[in-house]
Amino acid sequence: MRIAALAGGVGGARFVRGLVHELREVREDQETEVVVIGNTGDDITLFGLRICPDLDTILYTLGGGINEAQGWGRDQETHTVQRELAELGAQPQWFGLGDADFATHIARSQWLGQGMSLTEVTARLAGRWGLPGQGVRLLPATDTPIETHVVIDDDEGGQRAVHFQQWWVQLQAAVPAHRFTVAGLAQSTPAPGVLDTLRTCDVVLLPPSNPVVSIGIILGVPGIRDALRGSRAPVVGVSPIIGGAPVRGHADACLATLDVEVSAAGVAGLYADFLDGWLVDDADAGSVRVPRLDVRALDLRMRDVPGAARIAGAALDLATDLAARRTA
Amino acid sequence: MRIAALAGGVGGARFVRGLVHELREVREDQETEVVVIGNTGDDITLFGLRICPDLDTILYTLGGGINEAQGWGRDQETHTVQRELAELGAQPQWFGLGDADFATHIARSQWLGQGMSLTEVTARLAGRWGLPGQGVRLLPATDTPIETHVVIDDDEGGQRAVHFQQWWVQLQAAVPAHRFTVAGLAQSTPAPGVLDTLRTCDVVLLPPSNPVVSIGIILGVPGIRDALRGSRAPVVGVSPIIGGAPVRGHADACLATLDVEVSAAGVAGLYADFLDGWLVDDADAGSVRVPRLDVRALDLRMRDVPGAARIAGAALDLATDLAARRTA
Repeated sequence: MRIAALAGGVGGARFVRGLVHELREVREDQETEVVVIGNTGDDITLFGLRICPDLDTILYTLGGGINEAQGWGRDQETHTVQRELAELGAQPQWFGLGDADFATHIARSQWLGQGMSLTEVTARLAGRWGLPGQGVRLLPATDTPIETHVVIDDDEGGQRAVHFQQWWVQLQAAVPAHRFTVAGLAQSTPAPGVLDTLRTCDVVLLPPSNPVVSIGIILGVPGIRDALRGSRAPVVGVSPIIGGAPVRGHADACLATLDVEVSAAGVAGLYADFLDGWLVDDADAGSVRVPRLDVRALDLRMRDVPGAARIAGAALDLATDLAARRTA
Repeated sequence: MRIAALAGGVGGARFVRGLVHELREVREDQETEVVVIGNTGDDITLFGLRICPDLDTILYTLGGGINEAQGWGRDQETHTVQRELAELGAQPQWFGLGDADFATHIARSQWLGQGMSLTEVTARLAGRWGLPGQGVRLLPATDTPIETHVVIDDDEGGQRAVHFQQWWVQLQAAVPAHRFTVAGLAQSTPAPGVLDTLRTCDVVLLPPSNPVVSIGIILGVPGIRDALRGSRAPVVGVSPIIGGAPVRGHADACLATLDVEVSAAGVAGLYADFLDGWLVDDADAGSVRVPRLDVRALDLRMRDVPGAARIAGAALDLATDLAARRTA
């Protein structure tokens, strides 16, 4: 069996870690392959180094190297390089980068500079973090460099675009976003293996990642949304909104740009053209009524790995039921 | 007054630090400018980052950030980035790079990538290390990327060329060098300010740097040797050889490629066409007899900053005497 999961950063990474735990430990299933298709829209080049925050969060989380409290970055991290860069006046300083994390970006940039694709680079990094041994393959949604920008008000009554990370990290998403524009997205192509995975896998999962700037970007890579619409596999998603508020991050500020209600129903509507099953929190039970969408309610707080595994298991159960119903 | 000094790495850096101490502290001369023309032949690109070992050694030494025992690299250094790069399988691992040092190379590479020249990048780094406040300007000999390679025997009876750093650091210069070839040297041009400095300064000093792979490379940049030959300033050098052995490093292995005797006289011969004064160690007193070359003997061991200052002071005294003799 093969499961595809479209993932952003922290929420996606924790869900996938729970999924792997559910498969390997709870169900004792060592065979099922998990293919994670990661968002690259919030990639950024800083200090001349290519940084892929979502892919790295997935790698570090699955590999046991994540700063658990923070959700991103390496554990037991030091910050000598960034401190010295500040001494040198190198900009910017608002994006926190630890020393071990820097090594990832240095190696990635070196390998990209040698002509390797982001897919190849990511596979090499995945090897260091033991993903193959966990039966996990991590694919960037696209090898085409894309970058999400955010249109905000400037100080002179007009508008300006800033890189997504600047809005998210430096401005803490506190400045209203008018819209997101993704440089390179229209010209991007799915990375090798992405469309094939979506067309031939048995289950597609949407972790509780940001529906606009994480999963929304992945869906914006030409061909990916069509592949999901045409997939033979049931597509089951996990709501990132609980009781009208995002579990983590600034999904509310992102949904506002689309005039989409900050609710489990609102997010489900974004996926209406391909979504088959939808997990909502108990707090939202009964709030999502969509024809031909199978909605189930459970506790969606991922407090720890077993908690995330429990949610992933519910998603798998729903997918199994949907598949059985199709073949029936 | 303006003094020009052609410098390699550790020996050159310590000599210049002594020169600055002699000027500012001993002679209480806050006016005289020191222009250091640094070797870039042993520059290397590792992990996609541009590393200028000699320039950095000068910056760290003058700025008080040097690992004094080691002679190069930063003091109180950690090695998280390199350890993580090793985990990632990024190559090579034989070149030791600390975390704070990495920041220098990251910033330099970023700035070079933005279109700044090495001269501009070096000036910015020099600002961080307080060189302007010491009346010191550090210029790379050339902004043209050049790289010294070493021709050695291969395992199959033939020869192969390796980067200078690989020979010097990884092979510890223990493999006999047949010759040095410097990629880009013939097409290189002196960095802005270099020729002007050499033509108009009052004194030119040659610190006890490696005469082949440090000063020899600087002299190989087209135009620099001619500028020294035509300089109105006395050129005074300090022998890097004491009693038939290099004070530091592998100058003996380098001189062997030129069939030049490992002696104060041998090195003086390499500079014969422009050298006016030559400081040798007491151990070599009387060993250098060259027409029109003023040779003085003293203790040339640079044990500490005052010791280096004493030697620099002797070089300045000799230069002053030579200049007085010319105008007389």
